[in-house]
Amino acid sequence: MASEQEQLQAIRDRIDVIDRQLLELISQRARCAQDVAKVKEAFGDTSTFYRPEREAKVLRKVMELNPGPLSDEEIGRLFRELMSACLALERPLRIAFLGPEGTFTQAAALKHFGHSAQTLPQRAIDEVFRDVEAGDADYGVVPVENSTEGVVNYTLDMFLQSSLNICGEVQLRIHHHLAGLVPDLKQITRIYSHQQSLAQCREWLDANLPTVPRVPVASNAEAARVALNEPGSACITGQGAVDIYRLPVLMPNIEDQPDNTTRFLIIGKQPIPASGDDRTTLLVSSYNRPGSLQALLQPLARYGLTMTRIESRPSGRGMWDYVFFIDFDGHQDAPAVQQALAELRQQASLFRVLGSYPKGVL
Amino acid sequence: MASEQEQLQAIRDRIDVIDRQLLELISQRARCAQDVAKVKEAFGDTSTFYRPEREAKVLRKVMELNPGPLSDEEIGRLFRELMSACLALERPLRIAFLGPEGTFTQAAALKHFGHSAQTLPQRAIDEVFRDVEAGDADYGVVPVENSTEGVVNYTLDMFLQSSLNICGEVQLRIHHHLAGLVPDLKQITRIYSHQQSLAQCREWLDANLPTVPRVPVASNAEAARVALNEPGSACITGQGAVDIYRLPVLMPNIEDQPDNTTRFLIIGKQPIPASGDDRTTLLVSSYNRPGSLQALLQPLARYGLTMTRIESRPSGRGMWDYVFFIDFDGHQDAPAVQQALAELRQQASLFRVLGSYPKGVL
Repeated sequence: MASEQEQLQAIRDRIDVIDRQLLELISQRARCAQDVAKVKEAFGDTSTFYRPEREAKVLRKVMELNPGPLSDEEIGRLFRELMSACLALERPLRIAFLGPEGTFTQAAALKHFGHSAQTLPQRAIDEVFRDVEAGDADYGVVPVENSTEGVVNYTLDMFLQSSLNICGEVQLRIHHHLAGLVPDLKQITRIYSHQQSLAQCREWLDANLPTVPRVPVASNAEAARVALNEPGSACITGQGAVDIYRLPVLMPNIEDQPDNTTRFLIIGKQPIPASGDDRTTLLVSSYNRPGSLQALLQPLARYGLTMTRIESRPSGRGMWDYVFFIDFDGHQDAPAVQQALAELRQQASLFRVLGSYPKGVL
Repeated sequence: MASEQEQLQAIRDRIDVIDRQLLELISQRARCAQDVAKVKEAFGDTSTFYRPEREAKVLRKVMELNPGPLSDEEIGRLFRELMSACLALERPLRIAFLGPEGTFTQAAALKHFGHSAQTLPQRAIDEVFRDVEAGDADYGVVPVENSTEGVVNYTLDMFLQSSLNICGEVQLRIHHHLAGLVPDLKQITRIYSHQQSLAQCREWLDANLPTVPRVPVASNAEAARVALNEPGSACITGQGAVDIYRLPVLMPNIEDQPDNTTRFLIIGKQPIPASGDDRTTLLVSSYNRPGSLQALLQPLARYGLTMTRIESRPSGRGMWDYVFFIDFDGHQDAPAVQQALAELRQQASLFRVLGSYPKGVL
């Protein structure tokens, strides 16, 4: 029987053969990306090279065909990086995101666009919108929804003022830890965190620390900084801030729902063609009379469109009291969707399709 | 002639065929990694799965064979991610680095280990050493040298106390910007930056702002924070901090040497076998008598070993005044190196091989 070294060498020789084939194929793929550029140039087509619907199809296909042993997520990640590198042959995408560096939103941006993209941290959600509107960034990434706490209202409100489209969505699984320098839970006198995170851990806090004041601050990173400096304080924060500030974790994963995810939207100027598994988001308002919301939604049901979410927000304008953000499955280019929207539009005092975009893949 | 859409579709069909082949090959490669694990288990071999010398060989080979159009760097990055994903099938590597998040050192860690590794920010260089010594991290990443300013002394001094090996090196190209809220250069009253960055931009400062006081602070990120808050101040900092703090750049790339690079060391517990293109770092001290350093170095020359760097540091111990950190090309397992080191050792009052490791590839 072959020795360990001989057996390992045989495997490494196999890997070397595979790597050469991989190199050849990766290079062929990059040349195809150049061919796309040449064809577009020949036809005077100045449209963007980044095609979210095409990327979504590619990722779904390789994840569906993935024979293992790498997880679908790792396979998706590797192909994402490959597409990111091929795309950057032309010019790296510039992606504005709600900063600072190291936040969940940056993680979402890199997950969606790959590491050949250039990420540009912004200090507020409206700055992300502004950067994309001004063309300083190709796309923006903003948080929009948390599975336990609902929508990030500020992002929705921005769509009342902005003409940008929704071009995609990203989901991240998120854990919250209780962290701080106090030796045990009984000595905690105040708990700092972002309002959203406090809400996401409400049940655990009510059960375990019902009498300790909860203090909302601007971000979970800020909460960690306070917890480092104020004796008796603790914070609820993510793994990133725990790592950065080396805060002892008093209790990990205290979020009320174990599948706590945050959803982010990709915003941009271009409408996105259908990818085969898409979602559409509407911004609508109904006339203020009894039964008008029900009437508004009726066409969606009649054309068999599955509504996945509806959020109401005060409009902040005189003309209508509430606006509604409605997500449903399907793409606005599909005939059934077009007919449903045409009918819905007649019932609406305000009507805008914020975008049809591929459902999050990774 | 085919329409634009037809031509683009033909290219996309080619890409789809390539992607299926890539998927199959990537999965084969991951199965090889599992086979390696099985062979090791069968022989009761508990050695680490991460083999820096093997990774260096693989990267050099694919970069050498790279037919384009992707740059060697992008090809290296993609294979690095592929190896990182295969390695994480077993368990993700835990990498301690000099934090916080978003620093050059984290960029170096991810460049070297890929994004399937877990990076753990530490607040000081000695904490990185301690984490690796304690086994909380598999490897550490610390800055050691800047091409314009010389060594980061604190890292070298740590090797006087630590028994860790040098397992690798990473080089990053680094730019420095002058940034701040002042409307123009004439109104700057103070310039903040890390000592090292001030030194790297000395010529530019002497030529353009000779009379403005230069104030060293703990990090370039700290300098950016001060420049945001103190009227009349400016900072010298990197692109990362400029992005994070959205500081206007008053003058980009003011580093004196345009090929300004920072070198980082990978530290760990295991010695690394030869990769075919290696470097060795020695820590030595000579007896304090005339000509002793020359005598110490003589064996290296006699055996034809190219010395690439020598740094002297005060030892801080009574037994010798200075210690020397010496880099030369070659691996300590090579016969010529072994003989040279045996002779050198006889001249030395202190002698330690800090490590032989692959020269930085990416």
